[in-house]
Amino acid sequence: MRLKHIKGAEESIKMSKYYIDNPISNKGSFKNIFKNDNPIHLEIGMGKGDFIIGMALKYPNINFIGLEKFDSVLVKATKKLENMNIPNLRLIWFDAEGIENLFDKEIDTLYLNFSDPWPKKRHAKRRLTHESFLKKYDSIFKNGNNIIMKTDNRKLFEYSIKSFTDYGYKIEDISLDLHSDETDIVETEYEKKFVAKGNVIYKVNVKK
Amino acid sequence: MRLKHIKGAEESIKMSKYYIDNPISNKGSFKNIFKNDNPIHLEIGMGKGDFIIGMALKYPNINFIGLEKFDSVLVKATKKLENMNIPNLRLIWFDAEGIENLFDKEIDTLYLNFSDPWPKKRHAKRRLTHESFLKKYDSIFKNGNNIIMKTDNRKLFEYSIKSFTDYGYKIEDISLDLHSDETDIVETEYEKKFVAKGNVIYKVNVKK
Repeated sequence: MRLKHIKGAEESIKMSKYYIDNPISNKGSFKNIFKNDNPIHLEIGMGKGDFIIGMALKYPNINFIGLEKFDSVLVKATKKLENMNIPNLRLIWFDAEGIENLFDKEIDTLYLNFSDPWPKKRHAKRRLTHESFLKKYDSIFKNGNNIIMKTDNRKLFEYSIKSFTDYGYKIEDISLDLHSDETDIVETEYEKKFVAKGNVIYKVNVKK
Repeated sequence: MRLKHIKGAEESIKMSKYYIDNPISNKGSFKNIFKNDNPIHLEIGMGKGDFIIGMALKYPNINFIGLEKFDSVLVKATKKLENMNIPNLRLIWFDAEGIENLFDKEIDTLYLNFSDPWPKKRHAKRRLTHESFLKKYDSIFKNGNNIIMKTDNRKLFEYSIKSFTDYGYKIEDISLDLHSDETDIVETEYEKKFVAKGNVIYKVNVKK
């Protein structure tokens, strides 16, 4: 993914009240940031934040953390949030490669939305549903692993379904055409675009 | 499924050299019918037989058994076969409800093609991928369970994926658009119709 450099992005992100600085220092105690024991839901690759912001507004009794690697998109989220007050939302600028250093038995649900498909076989290890990532996720969950994935990329979805069940996940729920099955969906930026184009959106919820 | 009665169907089927009479008497020893130790693949609900006949012609070193409950469709298969000589193919007129009485540790692969979706929740038990059927299948497999399913029915496919993984199956291979991914596909009668209509065909191979 090539992203243009946005001048002042880093400074702008760090000024946001939603931003968690030095997040690794909170490992195992993110609940202290929220000052309550509500479940914590995490989105890896939150992009411009439409999904995680929408979820936090819809479910005030769940704490939401958005993780994003690229400051050039994360800054769009912090800008959207400038005049909003959502106590159950925080954002982290971090690469998911190191996720096992960030959380320790404290996440209830992990969202993977429209992740980069890395279509080339030699890049399979970079897919967020590759076995190497599934291993990393094991230590972040509080009570049982619970992952919810959405994508319009058929090949990534097929790959992920295999990868999840190979790793011992069971399929709790699956839709091969989410927008025919459900209304009142909290959408990502990509999802809005893809649905408008007529693409089918796949969704799966897996548990272990 | 309502099927019209075809006069003389039963007599016609029973005269076919492909027909196995009193099949239960062969439980555990179907290899004797084929007079070899080649793997045995079974299709439940073979309908008019296009798939099982096509497979038997394509793979002469595999033995194929087609199971069908309704004589009104089975007779179409025996008629097609009248002037053909396919030593690795046999047909059985039988209701899959009793499958555990028919085979004992002798099937390598089970095909479920375009099975009746039984869309009403109260009929879920009749779906060939319901847990009660998965239990019955356990005793028919020789070395490990291997099921290959095709359908154009999205709801049946989603249900089956869940049912398989709940029961401990892993997904070996999955395609959410078979006819985009593969050529040289042995098609069923239904499949030909549905593909012509532009329907997506789903396929999954599960193992346990």
